Amino acid sequence: MQFELTKEYISELKSCLESNLEADLLKDINLLHPADIADISDELTADEVVLLYQCLSDEVATDVLVELEEDVRERLLKNLSPQEIAENFIDNMDSDDAADIMAEFSDEKKDKVISAIPDTELASDIVDLLHYPEDSAGGLMAKELIKVQINWTLITCLREMRRQAEDIENVYTIYVTDENDKLIGTLSLKKLLLAPNGSTVKDLYFDDVRSAKAYEKSDEIASIMEKYDLVVLPVVDELNRLIGRITIDDIVDVIKEEADKDYQMASGISESVDSTDSVMVLTRARLPWLLIGLLGGIFGALVINQYQETLQIYPEMALFIPLIAAMGGNVGVQSSAIIVQGLANNSLGFDNLFQRLGKEFLVATVNGLVCSVLILIYTILYKDSYDLAATESTALILVIIFAGLFGTFVPLMLDKYKIDPALATGPFITTMNDIVGLFIYFGIGHLMYTWL
Amino acid sequence: MQFELTKEYISELKSCLESNLEADLLKDINLLHPADIADISDELTADEVVLLYQCLSDEVATDVLVELEEDVRERLLKNLSPQEIAENFIDNMDSDDAADIMAEFSDEKKDKVISAIPDTELASDIVDLLHYPEDSAGGLMAKELIKVQINWTLITCLREMRRQAEDIENVYTIYVTDENDKLIGTLSLKKLLLAPNGSTVKDLYFDDVRSAKAYEKSDEIASIMEKYDLVVLPVVDELNRLIGRITIDDIVDVIKEEADKDYQMASGISESVDSTDSVMVLTRARLPWLLIGLLGGIFGALVINQYQETLQIYPEMALFIPLIAAMGGNVGVQSSAIIVQGLANNSLGFDNLFQRLGKEFLVATVNGLVCSVLILIYTILYKDSYDLAATESTALILVIIFAGLFGTFVPLMLDKYKIDPALATGPFITTMNDIVGLFIYFGIGHLMYTWL
Repeated sequence: MQFELTKEYISELKSCLESNLEADLLKDINLLHPADIADISDELTADEVVLLYQCLSDEVATDVLVELEEDVRERLLKNLSPQEIAENFIDNMDSDDAADIMAEFSDEKKDKVISAIPDTELASDIVDLLHYPEDSAGGLMAKELIKVQINWTLITCLREMRRQAEDIENVYTIYVTDENDKLIGTLSLKKLLLAPNGSTVKDLYFDDVRSAKAYEKSDEIASIMEKYDLVVLPVVDELNRLIGRITIDDIVDVIKEEADKDYQMASGISESVDSTDSVMVLTRARLPWLLIGLLGGIFGALVINQYQETLQIYPEMALFIPLIAAMGGNVGVQSSAIIVQGLANNSLGFDNLFQRLGKEFLVATVNGLVCSVLILIYTILYKDSYDLAATESTALILVIIFAGLFGTFVPLMLDKYKIDPALATGPFITTMNDIVGLFIYFGIGHLMYTWL
Repeated sequence: MQFELTKEYISELKSCLESNLEADLLKDINLLHPADIADISDELTADEVVLLYQCLSDEVATDVLVELEEDVRERLLKNLSPQEIAENFIDNMDSDDAADIMAEFSDEKKDKVISAIPDTELASDIVDLLHYPEDSAGGLMAKELIKVQINWTLITCLREMRRQAEDIENVYTIYVTDENDKLIGTLSLKKLLLAPNGSTVKDLYFDDVRSAKAYEKSDEIASIMEKYDLVVLPVVDELNRLIGRITIDDIVDVIKEEADKDYQMASGISESVDSTDSVMVLTRARLPWLLIGLLGGIFGALVINQYQETLQIYPEMALFIPLIAAMGGNVGVQSSAIIVQGLANNSLGFDNLFQRLGKEFLVATVNGLVCSVLILIYTILYKDSYDLAATESTALILVIIFAGLFGTFVPLMLDKYKIDPALATGPFITTMNDIVGLFIYFGIGHLMYTWL
């Protein structure tokens, strides 16, 4: 059912939940897509969510549970026994969703729930999956898949596939393994549709299959699936044995999270937040960067303090402090953003550090010259001071070049030492460039005053 | 074949291309994935790409053409006749890829190529697709799909599917239509695998199908497919007739581009660039924002100029100009980023403008209080000036609150008037907040001086 969430719907739903009516609205909830029900929950209070949840059929409730935000899910499961969690929910989930949810439990609760899962095969799959780090191929994969052996006939193959398919919601690809379970190819459903009777797997399969190792990082998996337009990627162990598959919907989430994270870091937000989070959470996410900015501002004050004397001789230098600081910040953010994105998209090419700095030097010089000439003309026209004009335009071009090189260098260095380069963007680069920019500006002012 | 692009590989390839040898390396190129060959092309000069391209088989060349960057593709196709383009390339492509490439041609060339396409069905599909805007469902969809009619028997169904499947690389879903071609459901391959002989489509199909209208925007399509974990989405016309399907790989590109674009805007880069672009392109993308920053800096100078008198009485106020400007900028970028991301992810909830500003007010007040108390203590301890301390801490909290509200308000307003809210982030907000911050800072300084 296609559904649009409106303010009116939420207020009607709230009054139904409050009055505890056997309303049609509440019965119809079960017809919605679990993702829609999860969206609705985001608009309700904690108590209302519990009431809403009681209106759901077991099957829908399980699907919704997978879609909920972690804190909402935790609240719903808090009062249930391990027995209930295992039988009513986990037992009806795909192994990857079940493992993701189990990973949120305490070790003790995890053990209790696992031993209460009626489907022993699922229980053992979950135990397997829980071994892998969350951000690895193993942590993303599901164990459910369809595989056939290379030496099977089409008849055996179809029979086995029917048996395996019962557990699986979407069949994307059929994997072909040898007798030791090693992945050697794929069989497309299309080939199967078109196959003449009497064929064997050997006649039909495609022997060029791309796979991921269980411990590969999720962002590498994402860039592989994105680059090769894959919908599903098989995962193998060290011996190339097929152990699971990753589907594109989980990867879309990884891609989205990576991009959101980089954007948030560049904007000076230190944890993943959205506007519906509490004032407390939002404050905590934003304060650290503001404190860094504050510290930077204090250093800036110390720099200017050093040059009090220069400032007394050229009091008009104070006017252009914001300009110098802002330009350094902007250029630094631009150049670091280009590097961070290049690193994220593997599109940096093979230029070495010096070639890259050389290119940034050219870009910064051109930009710097344009800005610097403009400020030179402005200052001569409106301030009628050649000294000030010379100081400013020289400082501006140097600040722009420095900021560009610094913004290029820092993320590359962080990446080299395996630190997330996105850390370098946003307030950190801005703050550093502010301080250095002031040094350059007043340093040049000081020289002017010494020479003239 | 799994392939890793290395510097050594590229230099070996370059020397093979140069010496024009019948090298194995060049023959083996055809075994690589087209996306890998496109990556390799990025590392070669224009002439080398032409040489490389001549080593490819027709089939591989077609697939690579789809993967190349627009400018590289243009260069390769420039010297070919419309006849050659139509017969050697377009005729072997999926309708969506063909239409995307044709859209890059001039109208005249487009007509010539279309009339030269041997496969008339494909030609008419391409003409259809070219009618839709590039960023709409119609612009993203492919015409190739498998559809069956509700009243068919399983035997008819399989026969028809075999016929249709010949043209299609990946079969994800089988669509069920009524006799007027209206979309009424889907048939899963799994159901088909498990179906007993003698079934009809009516017995097996699933009647709840989500679809997109041809003119829906690509970012809406992306959020639907992301939310509901869809791998493929059918596209219908105004009469609900099935006209195409969108696959997740195209949507992954949309999601990535949207996220990258927001990040670049926030970083003050005005067109989509990456670090391998030319110095000219990089400069052009970055200069506009720098000029805005420059203009902002000049306005800042004018503001300070207004308060020359205040600055003469409290010369130490100059020390904290960078701090005030930086804090306003940082807070503004943070709050606008939260709104821009909320708008992009549809996660803003139903709070109205005033509730949202109210919340931002609280967050900014808490952050402002913390920063303001710290700077109060610092100034009293190290500058031993109560006047300066009072001016600064009052100014700082007001600047933080103003910047937070402004950063929240601007993207919401832009969005209301259908302007991309990401425009508001980055240098624009920073620059505005710099200027207003200086007004607040010196205004308060001026009041202090008037009162005391």
